[in-house]
Amino acid sequence: MTRILILGGGGMVGQKLARRLLDTGTPADAITLHDLGFPPDGAAVADKRSGDLSVLAEGAALAAERFDLIYFLASVVSGEAEADFDKGWQTNLTPLWAFLEALRAQHRATGGAYVPRLVFTSSIAVFGGPYPDRITDDFLQSPQTSYGAQKAACELLIQDFSRKGFIDGMALRLPTICVRPGKPNKAASSFFSGIIREPLNGQPAVLPVADTVRHWHASPRSAARFLTHAATLDTARLEGRRALNLPGLSCTVAEQIEALRDVAGNDVVKLIRHEPDETIQRIVAGWPRDFDPVRARALGFEAESDFKDIIEIYLADDGPVR
Amino acid sequence: MTRILILGGGGMVGQKLARRLLDTGTPADAITLHDLGFPPDGAAVADKRSGDLSVLAEGAALAAERFDLIYFLASVVSGEAEADFDKGWQTNLTPLWAFLEALRAQHRATGGAYVPRLVFTSSIAVFGGPYPDRITDDFLQSPQTSYGAQKAACELLIQDFSRKGFIDGMALRLPTICVRPGKPNKAASSFFSGIIREPLNGQPAVLPVADTVRHWHASPRSAARFLTHAATLDTARLEGRRALNLPGLSCTVAEQIEALRDVAGNDVVKLIRHEPDETIQRIVAGWPRDFDPVRARALGFEAESDFKDIIEIYLADDGPVR
Repeated sequence: MTRILILGGGGMVGQKLARRLLDTGTPADAITLHDLGFPPDGAAVADKRSGDLSVLAEGAALAAERFDLIYFLASVVSGEAEADFDKGWQTNLTPLWAFLEALRAQHRATGGAYVPRLVFTSSIAVFGGPYPDRITDDFLQSPQTSYGAQKAACELLIQDFSRKGFIDGMALRLPTICVRPGKPNKAASSFFSGIIREPLNGQPAVLPVADTVRHWHASPRSAARFLTHAATLDTARLEGRRALNLPGLSCTVAEQIEALRDVAGNDVVKLIRHEPDETIQRIVAGWPRDFDPVRARALGFEAESDFKDIIEIYLADDGPVR
Repeated sequence: MTRILILGGGGMVGQKLARRLLDTGTPADAITLHDLGFPPDGAAVADKRSGDLSVLAEGAALAAERFDLIYFLASVVSGEAEADFDKGWQTNLTPLWAFLEALRAQHRATGGAYVPRLVFTSSIAVFGGPYPDRITDDFLQSPQTSYGAQKAACELLIQDFSRKGFIDGMALRLPTICVRPGKPNKAASSFFSGIIREPLNGQPAVLPVADTVRHWHASPRSAARFLTHAATLDTARLEGRRALNLPGLSCTVAEQIEALRDVAGNDVVKLIRHEPDETIQRIVAGWPRDFDPVRARALGFEAESDFKDIIEIYLADDGPVR
């Protein structure tokens, strides 16, 4: 039995991943979730560990259990990493580095036999402008946020630990996940989901940027699928470049809103109120708008091609009963 | 008086830099050198501190002196970082990070008034193949050595600390410095200098790779000039991308050898013995061959355009009396 650890397993993506694993036949007792806390109505996994990876000994203890497959999703979100410089670097880089060292100690202790697959959720925030119209797979990482810099630094560690054979890792640069269920979070990208989710639930939503803003999206369902696909991939096919730009959908906020109008009608759209926020505008202005993810597509990663599908997926998986 | 700290000031580039500063009018008492040790015939600077930056408190004490300009050249070389994984990461990343945190503490202690210029020597080892014929300024960092990964991670930290205004930093991706004076070192690139230097000094030299290998070079004199130029640059012109690919000269080992023949004659060239080394071949095969450093050239950085000039500079600055 492949034993799976999901670090950050209490978060939205971690929960989606756990449910997908269960839905596709993974036995519940093969899965361990670790996070600061868990939602009360979460995925039906018994082995839930409440803890804090920034206590480095906790990560080392988990590493000593020698899981076969480790998903590293634990992270402070972009807005929080930007607001709290210390917390960002100490939460988004230090624990990953210490955990990789702990895995390497297990590798050594087993005479090199233990080489776990590790799948890390990176982000398109590793990029910074100016951008070409579509970002290619060989475009430089020049992050303009602390969050992006932390994710890029983690990618470098994962690549080097993998190159040395201590782990078999990869980093997935997720598009902005949309529509996120639940409540807004401190990510600067939170509104991309909010302007769809809140109106569909009969609530007002604030749009803090112009509707001409173009961005790169994939659904939570795609995110979970990316992660399970990555776990089974032959990493030799990555040819030493273990960070991947994933497929997604490029669209403007206006196109998002028109898709919402098509799916749910004019009255729902009227719940969106434009209220410019300079801080969010400045952060979002530095974000990628479109990609040409040739490598990931060739490796079998897939995402949505129509924003209406993204809305329908939200309604099917998380939305209010219609 | 601008007070200057050179970390790694005992090394080859640090010494070249100190001499250039003195030659161009910097008072000797404005310069502080820090390193594990210093050459006996070194640059005429009185304030030489023997120490170890991997003792993090030492870096913090230096930061507390609030130098105006800091050159961060201290590093374990590529071959050593590859052979000793722990030493590489603990020497090439941890002390830089801790030092940046210590500078940030000084920034905070002065109510934000202290924002030192920091110039970091990065390397073209941040890149990994496959490459285009010429590497452009927006090519991805995908290092294939621990040394390259460490340099790339340092760049991310310097960029983020600078973006936040704690320091005013930049990272210079130096070409392979050639001809290095003195003895071979543990860098995998050491032979690029050795095949010129040793024969010119009447000594045999080993060429561990094929003479078709193409690589990217600049002289030690150019390295020192890059560093002093960077110190006075208006960093607003970097537009948020604080790591720069520097100018250099692309040539093959065969072209290096022909230049040596032109400058010093056939008998000198005969001192080169081809002795393939698979480890060095494998490392060098992953290195860049040519660049198109548009940004750095526009910012006024310059290097040699003929390998004969590189040899002549060695003879003028470091070579045997002819």
